[in-house]
Amino acid sequence: MQKVIVVNGPNLGRLGVRQPDVYGKQDIEQLRRLCEQWGVEYGLAVEVRQTDDEAQMVQWMHEAADRQMAVIMNPAAFTHYSYALADAAHMVLDADMPLMEVHISNPAARDEFRKRSVISPVATGTITGLGFLGYKLALEAVADLTK
Amino acid sequence: MQKVIVVNGPNLGRLGVRQPDVYGKQDIEQLRRLCEQWGVEYGLAVEVRQTDDEAQMVQWMHEAADRQMAVIMNPAAFTHYSYALADAAHMVLDADMPLMEVHISNPAARDEFRKRSVISPVATGTITGLGFLGYKLALEAVADLTK
Amino acid sequence: MQKVIVVNGPNLGRLGVRQPDVYGKQDIEQLRRLCEQWGVEYGLAVEVRQTDDEAQMVQWMHEAADRQMAVIMNPAAFTHYSYALADAAHMVLDADMPLMEVHISNPAARDEFRKRSVISPVATGTITGLGFLGYKLALEAVADLTK
Amino acid sequence: MQKVIVVNGPNLGRLGVRQPDVYGKQDIEQLRRLCEQWGVEYGLAVEVRQTDDEAQMVQWMHEAADRQMAVIMNPAAFTHYSYALADAAHMVLDADMPLMEVHISNPAARDEFRKRSVISPVATGTITGLGFLGYKLALEAVADLTK
Amino acid sequence: MQKVIVVNGPNLGRLGVRQPDVYGKQDIEQLRRLCEQWGVEYGLAVEVRQTDDEAQMVQWMHEAADRQMAVIMNPAAFTHYSYALADAAHMVLDADMPLMEVHISNPAARDEFRKRSVISPVATGTITGLGFLGYKLALEAVADLTK
Amino acid sequence: MQKVIVVNGPNLGRLGVRQPDVYGKQDIEQLRRLCEQWGVEYGLAVEVRQTDDEAQMVQWMHEAADRQMAVIMNPAAFTHYSYALADAAHMVLDADMPLMEVHISNPAARDEFRKRSVISPVATGTITGLGFLGYKLALEAVADLTK
Amino acid sequence: MQKVIVVNGPNLGRLGVRQPDVYGKQDIEQLRRLCEQWGVEYGLAVEVRQTDDEAQMVQWMHEAADRQMAVIMNPAAFTHYSYALADAAHMVLDADMPLMEVHISNPAARDEFRKRSVISPVATGTITGLGFLGYKLALEAVADLTK
Amino acid sequence: MQKVIVVNGPNLGRLGVRQPDVYGKQDIEQLRRLCEQWGVEYGLAVEVRQTDDEAQMVQWMHEAADRQMAVIMNPAAFTHYSYALADAAHMVLDADMPLMEVHISNPAARDEFRKRSVISPVATGTITGLGFLGYKLALEAVADLTK
Amino acid sequence: MQKVIVVNGPNLGRLGVRQPDVYGKQDIEQLRRLCEQWGVEYGLAVEVRQTDDEAQMVQWMHEAADRQMAVIMNPAAFTHYSYALADAAHMVLDADMPLMEVHISNPAARDEFRKRSVISPVATGTITGLGFLGYKLALEAVADLTK
Amino acid sequence: MQKVIVVNGPNLGRLGVRQPDVYGKQDIEQLRRLCEQWGVEYGLAVEVRQTDDEAQMVQWMHEAADRQMAVIMNPAAFTHYSYALADAAHMVLDADMPLMEVHISNPAARDEFRKRSVISPVATGTITGLGFLGYKLALEAVADLTK
Amino acid sequence: MQKVIVVNGPNLGRLGVRQPDVYGKQDIEQLRRLCEQWGVEYGLAVEVRQTDDEAQMVQWMHEAADRQMAVIMNPAAFTHYSYALADAAHMVLDADMPLMEVHISNPAARDEFRKRSVISPVATGTITGLGFLGYKLALEAVADLTK
Amino acid sequence: MQKVIVVNGPNLGRLGVRQPDVYGKQDIEQLRRLCEQWGVEYGLAVEVRQTDDEAQMVQWMHEAADRQMAVIMNPAAFTHYSYALADAAHMVLDADMPLMEVHISNPAARDEFRKRSVISPVATGTITGLGFLGYKLALEAVADLTK
Repeated sequence: MQKVIVVNGPNLGRLGVRQPDVYGKQDIEQLRRLCEQWGVEYGLAVEVRQTDDEAQMVQWMHEAADRQMAVIMNPAAFTHYSYALADAAHMVLDADMPLMEVHISNPAARDEFRKRSVISPVATGTITGLGFLGYKLALEAVADLTK
Repeated sequence: MQKVIVVNGPNLGRLGVRQPDVYGKQDIEQLRRLCEQWGVEYGLAVEVRQTDDEAQMVQWMHEAADRQMAVIMNPAAFTHYSYALADAAHMVLDADMPLMEVHISNPAARDEFRKRSVISPVATGTITGLGFLGYKLALEAVADLTK
Repeated sequence: MQKVIVVNGPNLGRLGVRQPDVYGKQDIEQLRRLCEQWGVEYGLAVEVRQTDDEAQMVQWMHEAADRQMAVIMNPAAFTHYSYALADAAHMVLDADMPLMEVHISNPAARDEFRKRSVISPVATGTITGLGFLGYKLALEAVADLTK
Repeated sequence: MQKVIVVNGPNLGRLGVRQPDVYGKQDIEQLRRLCEQWGVEYGLAVEVRQTDDEAQMVQWMHEAADRQMAVIMNPAAFTHYSYALADAAHMVLDADMPLMEVHISNPAARDEFRKRSVISPVATGTITGLGFLGYKLALEAVADLTK
Repeated sequence: MQKVIVVNGPNLGRLGVRQPDVYGKQDIEQLRRLCEQWGVEYGLAVEVRQTDDEAQMVQWMHEAADRQMAVIMNPAAFTHYSYALADAAHMVLDADMPLMEVHISNPAARDEFRKRSVISPVATGTITGLGFLGYKLALEAVADLTK
Repeated sequence: MQKVIVVNGPNLGRLGVRQPDVYGKQDIEQLRRLCEQWGVEYGLAVEVRQTDDEAQMVQWMHEAADRQMAVIMNPAAFTHYSYALADAAHMVLDADMPLMEVHISNPAARDEFRKRSVISPVATGTITGLGFLGYKLALEAVADLTK
Repeated sequence: MQKVIVVNGPNLGRLGVRQPDVYGKQDIEQLRRLCEQWGVEYGLAVEVRQTDDEAQMVQWMHEAADRQMAVIMNPAAFTHYSYALADAAHMVLDADMPLMEVHISNPAARDEFRKRSVISPVATGTITGLGFLGYKLALEAVADLTK
Repeated sequence: MQKVIVVNGPNLGRLGVRQPDVYGKQDIEQLRRLCEQWGVEYGLAVEVRQTDDEAQMVQWMHEAADRQMAVIMNPAAFTHYSYALADAAHMVLDADMPLMEVHISNPAARDEFRKRSVISPVATGTITGLGFLGYKLALEAVADLTK
Repeated sequence: MQKVIVVNGPNLGRLGVRQPDVYGKQDIEQLRRLCEQWGVEYGLAVEVRQTDDEAQMVQWMHEAADRQMAVIMNPAAFTHYSYALADAAHMVLDADMPLMEVHISNPAARDEFRKRSVISPVATGTITGLGFLGYKLALEAVADLTK
Repeated sequence: MQKVIVVNGPNLGRLGVRQPDVYGKQDIEQLRRLCEQWGVEYGLAVEVRQTDDEAQMVQWMHEAADRQMAVIMNPAAFTHYSYALADAAHMVLDADMPLMEVHISNPAARDEFRKRSVISPVATGTITGLGFLGYKLALEAVADLTK
Repeated sequence: MQKVIVVNGPNLGRLGVRQPDVYGKQDIEQLRRLCEQWGVEYGLAVEVRQTDDEAQMVQWMHEAADRQMAVIMNPAAFTHYSYALADAAHMVLDADMPLMEVHISNPAARDEFRKRSVISPVATGTITGLGFLGYKLALEAVADLTK
Repeated sequence: MQKVIVVNGPNLGRLGVRQPDVYGKQDIEQLRRLCEQWGVEYGLAVEVRQTDDEAQMVQWMHEAADRQMAVIMNPAAFTHYSYALADAAHMVLDADMPLMEVHISNPAARDEFRKRSVISPVATGTITGLGFLGYKLALEAVADLTK
């Protein structure tokens, strides 16, 4: 069964608490349970992770490349400046694994600086604006791309 | 049953012929059939349209707003400059209908000018890089958002 | 009696429906009636038109140049990118007819992209921010400029 | 009867002398007489002022806000850099009085730097390119907006 | 015999009327006759078309790609913003047909915005500044490139 | 006892009236009294001034440099463009007197143009976002820096 | 008693060693002692922290939001690019706690890149250029804002 | 005898005191005496003026245009933003009088913002970097240009 | 018989050796022979020159202006920065001789910096993307323009 | 014997695995052995380190400054944004130790964003494009600079 | 007697022929004679040179630095891009000789690109807009600066 | 034995005289002798050249490409604008010879304009900031790359 890591970046451990009008009222535990359920549905072994640490994010990409795990990544604020993460993400593609970039809100409809993603050019694709549903669709995409 | 129009912009009538390495080998008829099947699956009345004409795109947005139809839009090259289409798309949101922006390829991984979307700020969300699968996921999103 | 065409661009057929807080509650029929009344007042033969189609807008400019009709133009979203329309508008000036650019709202007080007009440099003048009253004043200007 | 001050900025005391091909041959005294006549026509108590002094302009805005006077302002070169005047103009709007920005020529058809107005975003609306007629239309707008 | 379509964009139906100092005094009918004569000279079946409509331009490119017709295109104002036309032009190259961009005047010697062409990067080559002669040379180029 | 002038720029005479949600409800007289009290507290001879006139501001800087007075300056809108004031402020530093830039609101959280200060590079330091309290802290800083 | 964390970013553990002409000769231990004394003076429970680790900074913001602690932050070089820290800082404001940005030197008087702060727009206010005194004033501000 | 006004802008009353390494040790009185002597030498009636007030500068330009006086202007910091002064300077040229821009230091060798002059495009010519000698040369130029 | 110099800039002596996929396999001698033949065909006295030296290019322009020779110029890399050559080229136009800019490849389809030409604004016209054929067409244009 | 730390940034632990066409086929262990050998050759005590963690990189700079160790740094993706690392690197120079920036590939020949280094301005020098050989040369430079 | 070389850059050998409305009707021989006369007047040994060759210009700067000759330079089009010449000019200043930049016309009143000088930052001063008189004033300045 | 030319650009003939604090006190003769010695050491036939002439630099690149000579180039000020030299340098790479760019100082630590190199993208690699040692390391690199 294809393994998938769902990697959430800085401040996403605060889901449910932070700006609920933007990010929704559900917390990361609920996201974890939902992703695991969806994983069952799509025949994927899903593991949900969260970190505020850029180096940790980078190393999870290395792990994904080494262990042939697909990646669903919500890079949060790292989206806008972490070339280290972009370089690491590139390795996942080089390992012939899909990497989906997901955003809970629609960054294009918010601050000007949120319109620029250094991750998108090295992602398989992106899904934005759909809340937790975006993760479900990304899992479905991964299931399709790895079957 | 919720109506959804799947609106494809300029040059997308050429799918299957145009740069198959970028846009895939299936043509718009196959996209139509697939979307209709997916519509059945998600309980949506799906209609697939294509035009090379900006005014036609604009008027389909008016129709969607008037008739409470959700929209899945692949704005193709209009993505990068058609503020007329952006203003029209905004009306769909004002009518409390979701509008999903879909791109078959990942524009962020191609030409510099393809990184700028004037549509994204007025879309509910975007899905890129997944070929025809992107339309399926957008339909699933519409089903979820309108249930 | 001097002929004047009052040309309205994309999405302006939706007046009264679209963002009433920005564009007012009156629709294009009411605009038509008002402009015709004002025409009587100022001794002008007024015809109000609307289209979402850039080519149609362009051809109305040709018609105005050929038939010595003054133009009042609300280019709507075309304001920000249609050099085709700007080139066509230039021909009206070349035919020694006035061309007034009118905006119902004040674009300078809205989105950043609305601050740039490719039409203004080829207009006789502009009137913004006054709702339908802007059309009345533009008609008065045309009456004055063509007497 | 609604009071209106017609405030003219730097170098406008030179009307009739300065570049008559751009600004016309009539001087500020003629502008004053015309505005007063138009005021009678529209039922407004009009006072025409001119200054080359930014601080004076700013204080007239304060006076307008305090005494509930509408403002017609030709900010001349201050248009392009005086944020002090823009902040002052904002107070007129806060006092629920209209503030119309008028330009005798069409700045968009002249030097590049004249395309940028720091006043427009805090004006009710703008009228450009119509010579002294622009003031008449602005007075008509004020009459309409304050009735 | 190789077919060639000579496609003229917005406002070029006005040749002979519009700014004769820039675009010359001959009209589009004369251009048509000249191109047909030149076609005879170079052994090409030439058809001259004109439209103000972006979608029409786009579809003529599709037709050229499908029917193996070479293209000579004067995109007029679309030069500066129509990515839809650029994407369509790209298909002509993909069909191994030459596409020559022609401008009657020299855009680099005119307005700043005319220095940017979104079409040039997807053209085989460009010819500017030579009036109708530019079309003759483009036909000669097409004859050479398709022999 | 060290003299300090607290210099307030354009529109700050309107404190308490202008946008009370941004600038607070207290007026300049209250600011004067508070600053004088704080002066007593910190052993400083405080004089509060206000002007809408750039030249006046400039000359107060000259006076401060000549008479060895410290300066607390709220340059208001001059912040963003008055190089004349910046050059004058520089002289205060050259006279070995501290010059504190104070803003009642936090300009970085408001309009884009308010993010640029031509005064900050020639100030000893800045204090923003704290209402009248900012003046108190600036006085404390002056007391510390001149003891 | 209100708790306050004084959070110092990368390289600030080197105070007293690093460029003493810019950052002063006192080290972080002296800063700690001073802040604690000032805390006693203002009735605040002050804790001084330092880290070179962005993730640690982010998590201290979470802690502040959860435990209702005010924050005084010297983001050091993170000022110029860490959107992760900015997003975290925003949560402190959302928890109705003040967040003061402090810089020991005046960044506006140094390198060009130091003029841009991604933290300022989400801070209550900023204090720059006053050495350790800036911390004292920030504590006073916090005392005032939380009383 | 040709009249010339030598107009000095903001902060130039401080010559001899302000940054003597940049602006020299001589004060404005010495400049006045030197210019008057040089005037005798070149057969010009020279009057040296100084003001910190933009409106005053503007009005001196009006006076020069009206009374056919040549102008030597050191606009100081107004160089970089005062379009009001630039518009006024233009009138001097329109009156067929020369207007020389003089700078004591070489602005191009100092701050980045000092490289941009809004006055230079409307000056007859400029002289920079020569201290008071620049005024002498400008007087010589005026003598030559008006003989 | 009209004289024409065909001037080739830096590195074009390497034709046939340098990047044959971009510049073709024929060398400058073949270009010389072809141009001379084409000259016979069009009734022009053609001389082909090449230099890597900017000053030499400039002086050939002087010679062309003095001796009434038309110019076909492939400025190669000088295209992008040599204002000295642009000023010299301008003199050819001033001498009422045509100056055609030719590029063997299509610069718009290559590096970003190759999109900017400082020569185009002072050329009669340009021809790009056609290999040596571009020279033939330029000669034909010169024959037409000088007959 | 002079100590040198060879510090490798994010993703460089993946050498040999990541894009071998760009970064070569040898891994970090081989780099370590080579650097140690070269250290012997040049009389330097070499220690090779690698981390994906910005804070760790920063602290190694502190250690280098404290313990008088020279630094050879391959900042990898941190090159383009980590001002924290740049500030830390500056301390090494302040401690009179050389700091060499090394890149395995030539960043100027790759993505646009790789052309900007925030580290270069605070490095003693840089060596790029030479694979592992770059480290050898950097060690040689350090040996020379510290002898 | 102080030696001065008056160095004229590309295309200035064409004075009197090139755009006489911009550069005047006198040729370089007349300039030579005038400069030599003015040299007698100011007690300077003047030599006038002209070249179209950047390397020649550079070497004349070396000669000036070696032989302690002052320089008056009209860099013509090199003004806008020749950093080689700017570096060479810097050496003249390093040799404690003045270097005056002279332009016959006023570049700020012409093309946009002429507003940027890479020479001005390394010149003692500049004189523009005065025709040949500018050279006379520059000689006077040199006489003054070297006495 | 591999031939290497060490090519030095404009003003480098002045080494030892020009800004010795930046470029060192040794002159080009010493550089020549050192490079020849190092050549012996690395088994390379080294020839050191210098020119101020762009065309000469270009032609040396042609010679290197033709005669299979490696290149070490210090392009000096040409670094920042000479696309002619960049195109020529490209030919050296095409001839499978290494081309090392060397700078004596660290351009990134100096003027803003020195941060941009048009040569780096077509160099094998670069070495900066190490004085004459940079040449030695470049020779070592060449020896390694050509063995």
